[in-house]
Amino acid sequence: MNKILRINMASLEQKLEDGNKDYELLGGRAFIAKFLLDEVKPSCEPLGRHNKLIYTPGLLGGSKVFSSGRISIGAKSPLTGGIKESNGGGVVGIKLGRLGYKAIVIEDLPQNDQKYIIKISAEGVEILPGEEYWGLKVYETAAKLRERFGNKVAVSCIGPAGEMKFFSAGIANTDAEGVPSRYSGRGGLGAVMGSKGIKALVIDDSGAKMHEPANSAEFNEVMKEYAKILKESPVVEAYNTYGTSAMVQVTNAVGGLPTRNFSAGKFEGAEKIDAERLYDTITSRNGNPTHACMPGCMIRCSNVYPDEQGNTVVSPLEYETIALMGSNLSIDNLDVIAKLNYLCNDYGIDTIETGAAIGVAMEGGVIPFGDAQGAIELVHEIGKGSLIGRVLGMGAAITGKVLGVTNVPVVKGQSMPGYEPRGIKGLGVTYATSPMGADHTAGATARAKVDHNSREGQAALSKKMQYTIPIYDDLGLCMFVSAALGAYPEVLAKLVNTQLGTNYSSDDLFKLAQDTVQWEREFNRRAGFTNADDRLPEHFYEEQNLSTGTVFDVSDEELDEVHKLG
Amino acid sequence: MNKILRINMASLEQKLEDGNKDYELLGGRAFIAKFLLDEVKPSCEPLGRHNKLIYTPGLLGGSKVFSSGRISIGAKSPLTGGIKESNGGGVVGIKLGRLGYKAIVIEDLPQNDQKYIIKISAEGVEILPGEEYWGLKVYETAAKLRERFGNKVAVSCIGPAGEMKFFSAGIANTDAEGVPSRYSGRGGLGAVMGSKGIKALVIDDSGAKMHEPANSAEFNEVMKEYAKILKESPVVEAYNTYGTSAMVQVTNAVGGLPTRNFSAGKFEGAEKIDAERLYDTITSRNGNPTHACMPGCMIRCSNVYPDEQGNTVVSPLEYETIALMGSNLSIDNLDVIAKLNYLCNDYGIDTIETGAAIGVAMEGGVIPFGDAQGAIELVHEIGKGSLIGRVLGMGAAITGKVLGVTNVPVVKGQSMPGYEPRGIKGLGVTYATSPMGADHTAGATARAKVDHNSREGQAALSKKMQYTIPIYDDLGLCMFVSAALGAYPEVLAKLVNTQLGTNYSSDDLFKLAQDTVQWEREFNRRAGFTNADDRLPEHFYEEQNLSTGTVFDVSDEELDEVHKLG
Repeated sequence: MNKILRINMASLEQKLEDGNKDYELLGGRAFIAKFLLDEVKPSCEPLGRHNKLIYTPGLLGGSKVFSSGRISIGAKSPLTGGIKESNGGGVVGIKLGRLGYKAIVIEDLPQNDQKYIIKISAEGVEILPGEEYWGLKVYETAAKLRERFGNKVAVSCIGPAGEMKFFSAGIANTDAEGVPSRYSGRGGLGAVMGSKGIKALVIDDSGAKMHEPANSAEFNEVMKEYAKILKESPVVEAYNTYGTSAMVQVTNAVGGLPTRNFSAGKFEGAEKIDAERLYDTITSRNGNPTHACMPGCMIRCSNVYPDEQGNTVVSPLEYETIALMGSNLSIDNLDVIAKLNYLCNDYGIDTIETGAAIGVAMEGGVIPFGDAQGAIELVHEIGKGSLIGRVLGMGAAITGKVLGVTNVPVVKGQSMPGYEPRGIKGLGVTYATSPMGADHTAGATARAKVDHNSREGQAALSKKMQYTIPIYDDLGLCMFVSAALGAYPEVLAKLVNTQLGTNYSSDDLFKLAQDTVQWEREFNRRAGFTNADDRLPEHFYEEQNLSTGTVFDVSDEELDEVHKLG
Repeated sequence: MNKILRINMASLEQKLEDGNKDYELLGGRAFIAKFLLDEVKPSCEPLGRHNKLIYTPGLLGGSKVFSSGRISIGAKSPLTGGIKESNGGGVVGIKLGRLGYKAIVIEDLPQNDQKYIIKISAEGVEILPGEEYWGLKVYETAAKLRERFGNKVAVSCIGPAGEMKFFSAGIANTDAEGVPSRYSGRGGLGAVMGSKGIKALVIDDSGAKMHEPANSAEFNEVMKEYAKILKESPVVEAYNTYGTSAMVQVTNAVGGLPTRNFSAGKFEGAEKIDAERLYDTITSRNGNPTHACMPGCMIRCSNVYPDEQGNTVVSPLEYETIALMGSNLSIDNLDVIAKLNYLCNDYGIDTIETGAAIGVAMEGGVIPFGDAQGAIELVHEIGKGSLIGRVLGMGAAITGKVLGVTNVPVVKGQSMPGYEPRGIKGLGVTYATSPMGADHTAGATARAKVDHNSREGQAALSKKMQYTIPIYDDLGLCMFVSAALGAYPEVLAKLVNTQLGTNYSSDDLFKLAQDTVQWEREFNRRAGFTNADDRLPEHFYEEQNLSTGTVFDVSDEELDEVHKLG
């Protein structure tokens, strides 16, 4: 599985390559880091012809390993100006993996602004006219493509926001039921896809099979062990029941739940939007509180949120959206948040970036905090591409500049997810120092047993997470697996070796994670990033989180130590 | 003359200091460079409490030396995120110099958003309530303050754009007749002044005298020599007759006149907006084609542009405005350009940044190229602070992002002035590498006798200019003096020494210029700038100037050599 398919959108040529030896043992985020560093000029215009959009499953993509089907999508980000890997669930990664692709690399820009869809199957790749889908929202796009190409295909597509090249535009991937709501949401990759004139990838893996393990007997043994570990993990159990929304109580308790444009960390309406309320609401309406975004996932953190009539509003409704579009906007109503979530999914925008942008707009007086109807209308404005919609659609940083708001929760131009960094300082360190910009998945610390309001040990904690998580991102494993498998690195290595026929030690995997982050840092360095970019905005250092009374006080020196190795 | 006055806008305390020894021989741009590097955290929020707004005349400010009355205003720029000195004419510098101030340093932010004006006279400094002036446009502000404080005061003020903290907001300084149209226009310093709650400085130098030279006899001798050099200079003569508009023919001839959002360099309507047409129009309407922005200036590059009835529209109408709001917008009508210029002056915005932003908006389809009425209305929108006005008012870079236009003529966030950098490549080098962002005054090359379309020697030419001009900026001399005095460095040194009683060699002055630029570079480096910021936007390298067929091809290596010394 070392096939790299290049598709050139200007010439419409495709080229199937055996990947360079250097890429042989790289997948997912690791592949993106190395490939962009090797091939893309870091200073290039992200929406210009030199940027490349990469789809790559993890190294275990297409295998039988549970929860190994994540898709990594990457490019230079128009939002951050730096490297970007955005990782999504659903079945796109699984199907690309089964078809034997290490990566699909989409290059250049289309001539005369032509629009395409790309069909990938065992028979090869077709670049098809896409004009008829241009302008469609995400759910309709996926539905039409599944109608045309069959219900078993996976779809990865953009909505109107991606077409308009908004920096908050994500790429939607279908789940096992064909619902296009597994988002590679962050960093504006939807805009890169839009710039390349591509509405959707359609992936048909008919005839392709799961990758057989190199060593079946041992593989089956270690899979049993892996299953046992997952089953016995209390974190996995929590995800199973409550999904990611379990985090509302965790963060609110320590003053880390972003509230009213990240001015506070405890939300007076928290219990109206927390995990129990969500669970009760879903179950009382005959929704599904535990759903798997990809087949073979034991974590099943997803859910299906129905309205009072029992009709699905959105699936899933996750913690980050609850935080960014709930407490951050002073909205304490799950029905409203679910509706906002659905609209963002349908227009093709990241709920985190959009929630942060609307929070900034609320602080700027566009609408008041708590104005649910106003927030819904603003999301419609983004979808329509009106002027205020364009401003918001470009993300929180641009919104702040246009509206004259300086308290803007962004790092490297990307908005913070659902952890207030003066309340949960380890995530503040991750936001500041991750090559991805503010990103919880790059090094989540909220579940650690530490005093989250204190600066003590936070830099080290973030560092540990930042250099662990890429292992999972490289392999295509869900990051939640790490909560269970983190204590069993040798099991992880055995899974890899028995599947791939390699001979990695767990240290080798850590080394790969380390290389991944350092390649990313090097890309960013060449793009012009320095330690000065590894900081939170000034107000987090100088104004207190209104709930905790704390400021962000991890020193510059500590931040600069995070990526020093050895 | 080493008095530094600090005014703290939070405590309303003022403190008069004898400047640190290090500052003794620094004035104007040199003072700003060293002082910001010493005192302002380079990573600070430009509109936050850590930024400092500095007014400083040059070292010769307040002396009898012709054309030595420039005022340097500086701070960390909200537009570029880097260091900024913006240099204006008029009488503010002269009066501050006569009052004996090396610098006025305005610190911190006002409590409860209070508004002030600051009155500076021989009796001292008063911080007065400014609420009644808040909201007024620039001309009315100056008129009311002169009515209140007497016709002889100088006024330095902001308009509504500065109050709204727009990144294109400048600071207007009054000329000898009290007209507030000598702009420290670039880099958004008006927003910094607005953030500090200051509508205006009023400077009354009653009772203060010109600085007597340290050595009168020799000073008078060298002044005669200086006058002769100015009088005999053909460049000075050209400025005298045609002002800066003489440049229209020069740039248009080589394909360097920015046309339609910098897509071309020759404008089919050039002769309708060139120096002769301007001269004829002004003289036929009994306007004044040659006006001095400060008393004692022999260059008199300014003019007074009247309408058909002979009523003043604006004074001066200068080349940069003609290029950015004329050819760049495909507007070939001087009356329209004069009107746009007046409106920008009155709202308090930089005509360069605004012309570039409207050019980008035209490319983005907001209004068509050539739409004079539309352009006028857009400037009104900026003044009103409507949403499109806010977008444009934040400058060309933000406008490009919001509207999805990637061909944006900016470097370090600041828009290019009136020289298309594929047509006049030396200025392309200056734009790319100046610590100020795209700025013609940092190293103008358009009058050099070289092939401007060729890359040969352009980096060296720009370097020479970038390390010469700061001498003039440090002394408070008009940069046009350099065109005459450049060949006589020893005369310049004699002027300085006989006035100040120093013993500088001309090499010492060059060393001071060198230090100035290197201090600025160091500030920017600490703010996070790298060589990656010393580049033009991608399209200038890849798409041809439609008039010349050339691309910008000065190599990265050549650009990186510009600031290597020794």
